[in-house]
Amino acid sequence: MHQLELRKQVCQANQALASSGLVRWTSGNASGRDPATGEIVIKPSGVLFDDLTPEKMVVLDASGHVIDGDLKPSVDSTSHLYVYQNMPQVHGVVHTHSQYATGFAVAGRDLPISTTTHACLFGARIPCSGLASIGETEIGREIVRLIGDGSAVLLRNHGVFTVGKSAWDALKYAVYAEESAEASFLAHQLTGEIPELDSTFVAGCRSMYLNDYGQEKENNSNY
Amino acid sequence: MHQLELRKQVCQANQALASSGLVRWTSGNASGRDPATGEIVIKPSGVLFDDLTPEKMVVLDASGHVIDGDLKPSVDSTSHLYVYQNMPQVHGVVHTHSQYATGFAVAGRDLPISTTTHACLFGARIPCSGLASIGETEIGREIVRLIGDGSAVLLRNHGVFTVGKSAWDALKYAVYAEESAEASFLAHQLTGEIPELDSTFVAGCRSMYLNDYGQEKENNSNY
Amino acid sequence: MHQLELRKQVCQANQALASSGLVRWTSGNASGRDPATGEIVIKPSGVLFDDLTPEKMVVLDASGHVIDGDLKPSVDSTSHLYVYQNMPQVHGVVHTHSQYATGFAVAGRDLPISTTTHACLFGARIPCSGLASIGETEIGREIVRLIGDGSAVLLRNHGVFTVGKSAWDALKYAVYAEESAEASFLAHQLTGEIPELDSTFVAGCRSMYLNDYGQEKENNSNY
Amino acid sequence: MHQLELRKQVCQANQALASSGLVRWTSGNASGRDPATGEIVIKPSGVLFDDLTPEKMVVLDASGHVIDGDLKPSVDSTSHLYVYQNMPQVHGVVHTHSQYATGFAVAGRDLPISTTTHACLFGARIPCSGLASIGETEIGREIVRLIGDGSAVLLRNHGVFTVGKSAWDALKYAVYAEESAEASFLAHQLTGEIPELDSTFVAGCRSMYLNDYGQEKENNSNY
Repeated sequence: MHQLELRKQVCQANQALASSGLVRWTSGNASGRDPATGEIVIKPSGVLFDDLTPEKMVVLDASGHVIDGDLKPSVDSTSHLYVYQNMPQVHGVVHTHSQYATGFAVAGRDLPISTTTHACLFGARIPCSGLASIGETEIGREIVRLIGDGSAVLLRNHGVFTVGKSAWDALKYAVYAEESAEASFLAHQLTGEIPELDSTFVAGCRSMYLNDYGQEKENNSNY
Repeated sequence: MHQLELRKQVCQANQALASSGLVRWTSGNASGRDPATGEIVIKPSGVLFDDLTPEKMVVLDASGHVIDGDLKPSVDSTSHLYVYQNMPQVHGVVHTHSQYATGFAVAGRDLPISTTTHACLFGARIPCSGLASIGETEIGREIVRLIGDGSAVLLRNHGVFTVGKSAWDALKYAVYAEESAEASFLAHQLTGEIPELDSTFVAGCRSMYLNDYGQEKENNSNY
Repeated sequence: MHQLELRKQVCQANQALASSGLVRWTSGNASGRDPATGEIVIKPSGVLFDDLTPEKMVVLDASGHVIDGDLKPSVDSTSHLYVYQNMPQVHGVVHTHSQYATGFAVAGRDLPISTTTHACLFGARIPCSGLASIGETEIGREIVRLIGDGSAVLLRNHGVFTVGKSAWDALKYAVYAEESAEASFLAHQLTGEIPELDSTFVAGCRSMYLNDYGQEKENNSNY
Repeated sequence: MHQLELRKQVCQANQALASSGLVRWTSGNASGRDPATGEIVIKPSGVLFDDLTPEKMVVLDASGHVIDGDLKPSVDSTSHLYVYQNMPQVHGVVHTHSQYATGFAVAGRDLPISTTTHACLFGARIPCSGLASIGETEIGREIVRLIGDGSAVLLRNHGVFTVGKSAWDALKYAVYAEESAEASFLAHQLTGEIPELDSTFVAGCRSMYLNDYGQEKENNSNY
């Protein structure tokens, strides 16, 4: 893939974070990794989503050094990098402070499997991490420790990280983590608990999703 | 009706699902059936709402075989099909994961008749189904079992299905199911219960709606 | 005022109901009365907000007979008419099902004076009516019985009516009734009660608003 | 800075208040002060955000007299002025009734440090003031009394004030005060409490933000 193409894809995913209502101001970010070269493209730090262009994206090598771009990369770059280094099949990472998912993260609660969509997309609970500092490897370690073969982790008192086959694919999981969190929140408010699906039913949903959903089966597997 | 016209109508209803905020990413769908030919037009599986065009819609015959279109139909097609086969007067079906209605579906609670608008449009509670797998006839069976002469069913831990005289008509019920769910949710949070209208008052609302509302009386009856 | 000018104003107020997020699909409506001729212009029944044009507005005489327009007027016309007939200084009426205000209406609770903005705009609680049927004089009677020298009434299990010097002016009160309801709802969820401002402080807010707010003092008085 | 430039900046910040969903109708306002001349530019009173232009902004001298502009300034001008007079390094002030922050303000509760973003941006709780009348110095006094070296204060039963190096900078704090309030609200609803970060962790977040976040370090300090 030409580097400009990856810049465009990552820029588009960052803009879609904003248009999907998952982020505010300059918080949250998407990155992508080129499977061929290992180069990582990520949002610049502290730039408004409306002001992003492909040219403003920052290019890092596999060790995290800036190899192209005039701006500083996101302070979450070390977290993205840790994930890429420890999950070779991941080629996209997204981070948001989406509202309901962050509500669960502040409460320190896993996101239960309360909807068929959660079961289809994630196949398991979305775990909530321990507290982790921004800017070093703590966040990356928590993600890798908890994500298993899933695609999302809640970061305690912080927000959400999702991983995928591309920035756009990771965005998909960020959208559905928020949908799941909202449904669980509302049910909790109505009943004081969150009715969860049993493992057999979840496995059936997950299998249907992996095998039958969408136009191309390979789009559905995690990464 | 020319097939292209039905494709346009169904495409428009799917796009309105997104612009109305009732769906996210690729989840949810609308379909329509041609009363003359029995052909069913439905959203393709796993396609973003922004990317839909009339040409991308999938055409099924009355048995559910794809007879036109390059894409795979929604995994919910079997559910739509079951409804069409068992409810001959229905010519539109809509499925969403709209937020508050899904909250009630996760909680496993019927939507009570808490507003005059609910009484006008539905005339009865919106029942919540048992758990049903996606992709086979279970969902369709639950809808047909529970819908009575109503227009909407909550799917346990899943979302909402509505039916109507056309895709656009079914969309109307999806919008109002969400309005009703939100009003009931908020009242529940204020008082711990959901004050419900009595049957005589409901019947009066329903009669007013059927006879006096809108420009053409025949638009108001369910299907 | 030329009739076309009133049609334009009322159409614009109806469209602003939709763009402000206070209404869905075809529910809710705005009307205006010409002070000179007594003619009332109102939204047609069951028409989507996106489809409204000044030409589609319906003109009624002071007795409620349609005197111009090809469409049937809103089923709420009798309610608007009752208000105009009994409140000679009112020249605009708005009806919505805005979310939080309707939540209070379903709960059967008055909107307390919990914010300075509520105190400024309304100067008193927004009362919640008894149950009233749509399409006859019941709703209008409840509004006139309860509104005092205020500008808004919650309709039990239904929604909100506001009145003003014009359709646009009534829209202002509909926006602020919803703002007040949301603030009160959220505080209630945090504390189990809704802290209310005392009457002396409310009177100070109201006086400041009536005398100092905006560009022209006469815009602030109710009607 | 040329006065027209400040008018443009302040107008843009006011329009961004509306597009960010932090304000409704004519409530809320942004102002900026020219560091060179001491002139203050502020929103005119009671004007809809859609109708604002740089020309409609009102220019005040350091004593609060209107020195340019055809319209009356915001009734909150005395509050903005008090802040500018007592906080010489502040050159932007924003006031909103954003939903969740106002919910806490009605409840009379400080905004706790429940998220890493809150810790980064504010470094401390956002305090809730006592009750203060609009239009005199009471609000300004409460802000100055409580703000410490922070950037935001909740106004009891009213809304939020934030301060910054410019109108746009103050807007940033208004956006994040609302994000923090929403996360804390949702966690409170799930658990009955709001888990708060400890002071060492908060100090680490704040230090990272001040030293490493964004493109230019000097953008991050408060004012």
